[in-house]
Amino acid sequence: MNIDPSQQSNADNYKLLTNLVVPRPIAWVTSVNEGGVVNLAPFSFFNAVSSDPVQLVISVGVRDVISLKDTATNILRSGEFVVNMVTEELMHAMNISAADFPPTLSELDAASLHATPCDKVKVPRVAESLVSFECVLRAHLPVGSSTLIVGEVVMMHVADHLVGPRFHINGFAPIGRLGSPSTYCRTNDRLELARSSYDALIKK
Amino acid sequence: MNIDPSQQSNADNYKLLTNLVVPRPIAWVTSVNEGGVVNLAPFSFFNAVSSDPVQLVISVGVRDVISLKDTATNILRSGEFVVNMVTEELMHAMNISAADFPPTLSELDAASLHATPCDKVKVPRVAESLVSFECVLRAHLPVGSSTLIVGEVVMMHVADHLVGPRFHINGFAPIGRLGSPSTYCRTNDRLELARSSYDALIKK
Repeated sequence: MNIDPSQQSNADNYKLLTNLVVPRPIAWVTSVNEGGVVNLAPFSFFNAVSSDPVQLVISVGVRDVISLKDTATNILRSGEFVVNMVTEELMHAMNISAADFPPTLSELDAASLHATPCDKVKVPRVAESLVSFECVLRAHLPVGSSTLIVGEVVMMHVADHLVGPRFHINGFAPIGRLGSPSTYCRTNDRLELARSSYDALIKK
Repeated sequence: MNIDPSQQSNADNYKLLTNLVVPRPIAWVTSVNEGGVVNLAPFSFFNAVSSDPVQLVISVGVRDVISLKDTATNILRSGEFVVNMVTEELMHAMNISAADFPPTLSELDAASLHATPCDKVKVPRVAESLVSFECVLRAHLPVGSSTLIVGEVVMMHVADHLVGPRFHINGFAPIGRLGSPSTYCRTNDRLELARSSYDALIKK
């Protein structure tokens, strides 16, 4: 089936895109507003984009969901945010934080989560997350009706039990986002595949 | 454990980043060089970023892997590319395409894949992929030592058997990228969670 997105409604395009570009990692983003209220919201239009230096992107929509708009406003104002990762035991708390709270209320309180201070940014991280990235805003640009935010990771927090010698990460299985609405995947069903080399291929 | 990426080697930062920002969707990108050779390479620094209009990003590294550099060169020259999605039966072909072929050789031939024409761009798509997105370059910006490419999706190809009434997508389970090197996840182990609403939460 060939589908021309310019001939579809936005709702149909959103549904197709979020069901087809999968699995998506989830950035559970803390940011702080002018009044000092900590905002928390999940985004799955998110990924790493560079390791030298370490940079990541999140795309924040302008849909009529208050916490999404709050996140963009806060990041563009303060130049800082934190990306917390979501493992299965935090899934319900993440879901609560996705509701459209007024900007004066903190999603952390509603989800019975705790904020803990960061080292290099004023925005706190989620104490319950096993992995958090302290980020400084490096660039932003419009992508359609959304805002693409490029952040540089200035500090990583990783639960001690996940880190082995030489930064070997073990036992970390965050959930991934699948189709809209409301489907996720576990990441425990794993496949290993050694990378091909050209030399090995031409010798066959 | 607190890790300051500015105090680590690039190799350690790459390893940490690719093991922690997971699961990542995989863009298997076709592009065409000046001589007409079709290049094919997988990228997991990839995601949707907007549905209005439909836009996605891929980050193309400048690491010493020929096909990666070819992809960026080709997209910036021609302004076009195609993102093909990778389901499990295409995993070995994807892995072959990740080897560092010289730019005069097509990874499609090496992986026994077939190119099929697109509708709106001159770059072909991978005939064997169940889902392909025809893309036109809309913006590009440096992110660290990589190039972030923003593409607008001008046509979607979805295998007929995946599409139900009202664009309901069924049975599509592309693999996701986990830690480096060489780990992937299946996306069949799924969780459903109805989205919270603020109104429902305050009534509790």
